Amino acid sequence: MPAGSVAEATRPARLRPAPFAGLPRRVRIVEVGPRDGLQNESTPLAVGDKVAFIVRLAAAGLAAIEVGAFVRPDRVPQMADTDEVVRRLGALPGVALSALVPNRAGMARATACGLRDVAVFTAASETFTRRNINMSIDASLSAARDVVDLAAANGARVRGYVSTAWWCPYEGRVGPDAVRRVAGRLLEMGCREVSLGDTIGAATPHEVWALLDRLVRDVQVGSLAVHFHDTRGTALANVLTALWSGITTVDAAAGGLGGCPYAPGASGNLATEDLVYMLDGMDIETGVDLTRLCEASRPLAALLGHALPSRYLAAGRPPAP
Amino acid sequence: MPAGSVAEATRPARLRPAPFAGLPRRVRIVEVGPRDGLQNESTPLAVGDKVAFIVRLAAAGLAAIEVGAFVRPDRVPQMADTDEVVRRLGALPGVALSALVPNRAGMARATACGLRDVAVFTAASETFTRRNINMSIDASLSAARDVVDLAAANGARVRGYVSTAWWCPYEGRVGPDAVRRVAGRLLEMGCREVSLGDTIGAATPHEVWALLDRLVRDVQVGSLAVHFHDTRGTALANVLTALWSGITTVDAAAGGLGGCPYAPGASGNLATEDLVYMLDGMDIETGVDLTRLCEASRPLAALLGHALPSRYLAAGRPPAP
Repeated sequence: MPAGSVAEATRPARLRPAPFAGLPRRVRIVEVGPRDGLQNESTPLAVGDKVAFIVRLAAAGLAAIEVGAFVRPDRVPQMADTDEVVRRLGALPGVALSALVPNRAGMARATACGLRDVAVFTAASETFTRRNINMSIDASLSAARDVVDLAAANGARVRGYVSTAWWCPYEGRVGPDAVRRVAGRLLEMGCREVSLGDTIGAATPHEVWALLDRLVRDVQVGSLAVHFHDTRGTALANVLTALWSGITTVDAAAGGLGGCPYAPGASGNLATEDLVYMLDGMDIETGVDLTRLCEASRPLAALLGHALPSRYLAAGRPPAP
Repeated sequence: MPAGSVAEATRPARLRPAPFAGLPRRVRIVEVGPRDGLQNESTPLAVGDKVAFIVRLAAAGLAAIEVGAFVRPDRVPQMADTDEVVRRLGALPGVALSALVPNRAGMARATACGLRDVAVFTAASETFTRRNINMSIDASLSAARDVVDLAAANGARVRGYVSTAWWCPYEGRVGPDAVRRVAGRLLEMGCREVSLGDTIGAATPHEVWALLDRLVRDVQVGSLAVHFHDTRGTALANVLTALWSGITTVDAAAGGLGGCPYAPGASGNLATEDLVYMLDGMDIETGVDLTRLCEASRPLAALLGHALPSRYLAAGRPPAP
């Protein structure tokens, strides 16, 4: 009788629970395409095109959208029109619009255009922080505290980003303790949530588990979010691992914006379409309508002059006769 | 004190084992790029280029390589030179070369060029089987049995493929019981292993778990392999789920060959590079050297006239200072 015969086979001896029993029923997606996606594009999008994109994202059901950054226009020209974008958007019912704010000056702009949600940023790698924003980690945390204090005075909510939470482009692997230290300081100063970024898209499930397992010993898991790039194809496997760790907030960018998909070193964000497709298939609610989401992303290929890296966006819904 | 404060936070109440404790230490990769990858390319590869590709794959450590198909040359011209490819390859020490064999005529060709490993194929969806090979499932199983019987007489080993194990392009979702029936018959007739194919790349982790959980009640998990396409970005999350189910054999195609990556409906195989990268990061042995694997795949972009969909191949190794 052959080795794989049905007759002689038995269920393998193991006592593993179904891996999905403990997963959340609902995942909150923070859409970062208009900011983390578009900030790296060589072709800047017109204000009207950004507004249309964001309005369509909201119509698709995305309830938290990062729409821009109040950074120096000479450094990041793609984000120079964030004030105008926010003003033209006005209030979108049920949608929390946010923007990246590096310092007091940025916070003044955010307040002037009425934003109630802002985000500060630092990193777990000293070299990255110095090269990326020309500051030490401590100096960036000090700038973040200024923003948090101003936000508290205005009743605005602050999210903190920790870049290079797993890998640094200069230092290689980053240890969980370094991330723990920075994330803890952001939460202690008053950030509502900390988003852990795999900036160069190099993390694998083991590393994701190792970091989250370390963090949830000290930090409420509900105050953490994950932010993966799909540079090496591992983003959704990492999301699955993060959900298993108790995470319920996941960042993603419509279309997989945020990298040049066909060039060596390509580094797009996890595509919101791919994320929603997987979560839909797992009966995990997101509130996002995948068809409408694709309608939001699809026009960007022509506007930006290149195909978008989202695999679902290219392939579409599987057949359902 | 803010909600996420370190001081007040506690470890969430849960009793989940680390999701990696039960995963295999070693995964066997069946490289299907030269067959399942190249059979869909509009530009046929020259025999010499195929041989060089396969030799490099073997040199990278891939110990099971499907090198072609003994199918009708008028139907699949890309595979017409399989006999010649196998003859020129000769014996590669420690490497099991195999080819797809649809019937007695194909088996005669496989035997004539000395192949010791062959593969038969059917599907779990009746409509797909009829449209793809113009046979009923039962007729295809009968043809498979002819091959298995000839192989047994020659001491050759047979693998069985079950296409549309999760989704059918005509029927939509495919139920686990239909797969169970076909996989069981392949094993009972003498196939050493059955590879379950997500032909249109639509499966999500829940569906992967549901099918494998059903199958391992009746079939030894060691006789099953999984074969994912990364059409909607879920392939590695599905692999992670399959490993969790006890699977230790995973099919993949170097470069992610097997689809047109930038066109709507793109449907490449899971890229071997992306798979090995993830497993390396999880300390799961594959025996494959990722750098040498990329050396095998990289020349194909120019030969085929398009970029390859593997994300790792485009991005490369993350920095390790």
